[in-house]
Amino acid sequence: MAPHPLAILSEEETNLARDVVIAEHPNTVISFREIYLLEPPKDQLREFLALEHAGRLSPTTPRPPRLATCQYDVIGADHIPSFHESVVDVVARKRVKHHIVGKQHHAPLTMSEFENLVERCFSSPLFKKALEDFDLPPGFEVTIEPWPYGGLDNTEENRRYFQGLCFATDKSKNNPDANFYSYPLPLIPVMDALTQKIIRVDRPATGGKGDGLTEQTFKRDIIGHCKASDYVPELLPDGTRRDLKPLNVVQPEGPSFRITNESLVEWQKWSFRVGFNPREGATIHDVWYDGRSVMHRLSISEMTVPYADPRPPYHRKQAFDFGDGGGGNMANNLSIGCDCLGVIKYFDAIVTGPDGSAKKLPNAICLHEQDNGIGWKHSNWRTGRAVVTRNRELVVQFIITLANYEYIFAYKFDQSGGITVESRATGILNVVNIDPGKVSDYGNVVSGGVLAQNHQHIFCVRMDPAIDGPNNSVVVEESHPVPMNDVTNPKGNFYKVTQQTLERACYLDAAPQLNRTIKMINPHKKNPISGHPVGYKFIPLATQLLLADPNSVQAKRAQFAQHHVWVTKHRDGELYAGGRYTLQSQQEVDGVADAVKRGESVVDTDVVVWSTFGITHNPRVEDWPVMPVEIFQLMIKPADFFTANPSLDVPSSRNAASRVVQKECCRDAQL
Amino acid sequence: MAPHPLAILSEEETNLARDVVIAEHPNTVISFREIYLLEPPKDQLREFLALEHAGRLSPTTPRPPRLATCQYDVIGADHIPSFHESVVDVVARKRVKHHIVGKQHHAPLTMSEFENLVERCFSSPLFKKALEDFDLPPGFEVTIEPWPYGGLDNTEENRRYFQGLCFATDKSKNNPDANFYSYPLPLIPVMDALTQKIIRVDRPATGGKGDGLTEQTFKRDIIGHCKASDYVPELLPDGTRRDLKPLNVVQPEGPSFRITNESLVEWQKWSFRVGFNPREGATIHDVWYDGRSVMHRLSISEMTVPYADPRPPYHRKQAFDFGDGGGGNMANNLSIGCDCLGVIKYFDAIVTGPDGSAKKLPNAICLHEQDNGIGWKHSNWRTGRAVVTRNRELVVQFIITLANYEYIFAYKFDQSGGITVESRATGILNVVNIDPGKVSDYGNVVSGGVLAQNHQHIFCVRMDPAIDGPNNSVVVEESHPVPMNDVTNPKGNFYKVTQQTLERACYLDAAPQLNRTIKMINPHKKNPISGHPVGYKFIPLATQLLLADPNSVQAKRAQFAQHHVWVTKHRDGELYAGGRYTLQSQQEVDGVADAVKRGESVVDTDVVVWSTFGITHNPRVEDWPVMPVEIFQLMIKPADFFTANPSLDVPSSRNAASRVVQKECCRDAQL
Repeated sequence: MAPHPLAILSEEETNLARDVVIAEHPNTVISFREIYLLEPPKDQLREFLALEHAGRLSPTTPRPPRLATCQYDVIGADHIPSFHESVVDVVARKRVKHHIVGKQHHAPLTMSEFENLVERCFSSPLFKKALEDFDLPPGFEVTIEPWPYGGLDNTEENRRYFQGLCFATDKSKNNPDANFYSYPLPLIPVMDALTQKIIRVDRPATGGKGDGLTEQTFKRDIIGHCKASDYVPELLPDGTRRDLKPLNVVQPEGPSFRITNESLVEWQKWSFRVGFNPREGATIHDVWYDGRSVMHRLSISEMTVPYADPRPPYHRKQAFDFGDGGGGNMANNLSIGCDCLGVIKYFDAIVTGPDGSAKKLPNAICLHEQDNGIGWKHSNWRTGRAVVTRNRELVVQFIITLANYEYIFAYKFDQSGGITVESRATGILNVVNIDPGKVSDYGNVVSGGVLAQNHQHIFCVRMDPAIDGPNNSVVVEESHPVPMNDVTNPKGNFYKVTQQTLERACYLDAAPQLNRTIKMINPHKKNPISGHPVGYKFIPLATQLLLADPNSVQAKRAQFAQHHVWVTKHRDGELYAGGRYTLQSQQEVDGVADAVKRGESVVDTDVVVWSTFGITHNPRVEDWPVMPVEIFQLMIKPADFFTANPSLDVPSSRNAASRVVQKECCRDAQL
Repeated sequence: MAPHPLAILSEEETNLARDVVIAEHPNTVISFREIYLLEPPKDQLREFLALEHAGRLSPTTPRPPRLATCQYDVIGADHIPSFHESVVDVVARKRVKHHIVGKQHHAPLTMSEFENLVERCFSSPLFKKALEDFDLPPGFEVTIEPWPYGGLDNTEENRRYFQGLCFATDKSKNNPDANFYSYPLPLIPVMDALTQKIIRVDRPATGGKGDGLTEQTFKRDIIGHCKASDYVPELLPDGTRRDLKPLNVVQPEGPSFRITNESLVEWQKWSFRVGFNPREGATIHDVWYDGRSVMHRLSISEMTVPYADPRPPYHRKQAFDFGDGGGGNMANNLSIGCDCLGVIKYFDAIVTGPDGSAKKLPNAICLHEQDNGIGWKHSNWRTGRAVVTRNRELVVQFIITLANYEYIFAYKFDQSGGITVESRATGILNVVNIDPGKVSDYGNVVSGGVLAQNHQHIFCVRMDPAIDGPNNSVVVEESHPVPMNDVTNPKGNFYKVTQQTLERACYLDAAPQLNRTIKMINPHKKNPISGHPVGYKFIPLATQLLLADPNSVQAKRAQFAQHHVWVTKHRDGELYAGGRYTLQSQQEVDGVADAVKRGESVVDTDVVVWSTFGITHNPRVEDWPVMPVEIFQLMIKPADFFTANPSLDVPSSRNAASRVVQKECCRDAQL
């Protein structure tokens, strides 16, 4: 049987696509970047899904073409690569589309480019010379953390660059996981990717308050004031705590979910498909609840991490963690018992090697149930009877590592018809060297000689709603005070709830002072109880937007980070809030801001809603050396979609495994 | 041994206090309202706690007096009660303070007053006559939901009133837990508590859009268009779902906490005491982490629920759920396996009967551990090694039922030094009758004939910080954009972090656009790493503040609900954001707004910080008949209090009880 149109490309399909591409470029050197499923055009996909939901699929049902996006460099005779994108029909085994990406854009980076940078640094006389300015303590060796180059300055030639952030590793510890981030070196080698040469070694300042932006104040003994700050348990001076008793999640009858037909997840009246691609990581498709469509597609579209240290070249520290190298590519292998508790289903993913061959990324996504406290409760004070349910959730999780940082992303489905998109930021702060005894306006000293610079993390979640069908509208609901008056508000307690249907693609911001709420509705379906259109809603997270000056390169390339909500009309392939090509971009191209500029009608049509939120992260000492999770939750909830609380029928029986504490841990307890 | 100064009054102590009060009022009829611990004056308590933490307590150490607050009515010869407050020293067995509360204030209500109202309604000719306007279907009987009277209109005489919200119960179901809220009756009987007479039956309008505020449009067949909407499992038409498999939390080695010395909880370097009083419910005292003081006292101070339906007398629907009748008094008996999972420690509480006798409230507070996902993680992409810890939390929880609504309050301590105060709103919406087929600007029709009115829930959490000692300051930190300029921001990426120490008691609001953060610091203790003062911080929740017109009675009596943050200087007994006496108040008296008006210095002194947040609740159909939890979390986190991530030493070992799904639930899974 043919794979489901939303199933990721198999290893075979991936390799087949590669073969087709190679055959199209005979006698040419090709270096592959990505091969992954090009989701079918929405019209065709929708047709297929309609038949599927109607139970009318048969082996002869026509299927949307099975397409592979292939991104690769063609290395010319002059050794200059050009960046190509082809679309291959893996059933027909032929290329159906091909174009060469304009030179103004850069292909997303690959790990092998990062590896190149490291090698080239170590063989670079320029870099060696720069190192001569410092004396490293015995046993220390330089470690290079490859980074994208950030936004190009206007004055720079638009070539492909990479930068290296430099640290020193204490090899005397004889532990490859000793934390080199605690020994930052003030050198940033820059490589020209084409020539593979280190063209320059930037020298960021190491000063503090009162020192100039470029003043060189470093000491030869550059990390003499730095201290080990390890996180691997065997290097902790006092080891790990011993008073934490095990807490196990046990599901004696197995999980409540079912996974069939490749990637179809069914759980508690929900059904959806789990997808994966090298850019967005895990994606959620074709979400239904109890036979009704809710969402066509849900994904983490982009995130940007701009740093606020004004000292050049730190303005170039701005990552686009999905666009630059692919969030999916950076997905962790999640292993049992560490990343989740309970009974876990893992999904493997497929990524691509430089030769275009499929490479399994095992356990890239996990799925499990969890308990999230009380779901609903009511006690009748007359009878003393309490009815209480637990709030069970189904979690689809993936975790990405971007050099020092990690992000844990989860799509959580609950029994009350809600979907929460959660992001947890953790990992290691990106830090730089600061002279002994100094403090800085640009960040916080989190360890001897280690300055953690102020920065922001700004996420964008893309929602393609399908509330009871493909055509939806977006309503902004607000609650406004009304001055006391004899006619409408004699006692002053009234407030007015306003609803405004958005007419054209637009952006808007969170307005908690108005309780601004975004409703995605189906204008043709009325809730039989309330008479209002059926819908789902969310309150945009009122978090600080991008702080960079609007004329800065940081801001120009991250338009999406400047408003909380974007509403656009769907276009196939328009998935990336910050634009398709973010690596080294100088401005956001074909991102959500451009989509809004089309000014299309968003009434009763195929709308897409984008939610931007994040954190202004002025580091605490407590964020070092590994940062406790900072949690963000975008809650998408039904709003008159159902005719009652959908979790009303959750059993309220007591959990037989719970028990009261034994006396021994509570000696003398009298309260 | 004498009880700890923070231990709640025992049954014996409570009864002793009662006896002392009775002896002080010979030949007088006394009706008791509350007897509970008056926490010792802070100076004396602090002295005791200092000795305790220094390990210098002995049986002969002088202790603060052990005091009972006794609130009671003295019924005069004219049968007119006056409201008295006495303080009894239960060790010395004598009254040490006594005053009669001014007539402008009302004592908090008691359940027996509520019971009175119900009785008086049913024997009231006025009420019987009002009922004659309606035909109830066979088998239906009137049910009266007693309510506080809300804010007095300026034109009303300040007597003590209660109001009843009326519903009908379908007795034919033969189930005392059939949901009467689905059959609202448009009658509000009002009782004069002194004369115990129903003085009036208010007739709220039942109209919809376009109908006047007082227009009487009801039909005789008043609930003919209402429908059963039950939540007890045996009355659900289709029963409960059967596809939810058990999820057990098992702690084979028992919990990681220890409870000793009455109410001292020790867990993962935290130590604190659990208190309880009839007003605030569970309170947290003397919080230390690893031998350092963090917080002197933490409590839920008040909440108000104003309704926004402008039709009289609905402006009187405004509850103060802690002040009116006592949040603690309404605490549920939490029973095992329903309200929590895992290994649970329950604390009993003591409340007071009308005769002043102590009454045990069993299992009023529970304490347990829970897993909250990943705590921190880092993968070294060079070595592939991931270190990941779980985020274990210790939860102190209590749940209150206020007629239709319930609130689940939790103080959650985590391994990263954070404290989260969580509130979950659930229970049944307060609803009124609406004519068939109509919709309303004042709320949402959530069931046939049932209008759920728009309203707000506004909470206030009181924090009495003791960051490394009693004297603290409060700093407002903000992040501001800086225009691009050659001198300080050449590339435009810089933003400026400002810190302002608050000089005088004041209020301020959330400002997410500035990332406004409130830091409670000890100005005398510097973090040895960062050089900044040690502190704890929170970001005020940017939720909508009170919407009622500032000149309305609703607003005047809830000043605390009009700003997000209040900073005051500590005064003994100043615990209640909305003032000590909220029942039927016309304005907030001696609440947090008055405390601010004193204008005291809040620099390097005993400061108290109050955080207001809530929800504008424009009901969804999904909130009916019992509402899925709406969750609010105030996160209080260390900010340069520690010298590294305090959870760094949490073991990262894998959980042996977790496992991969069996194949059978994932047939055909190929992804």
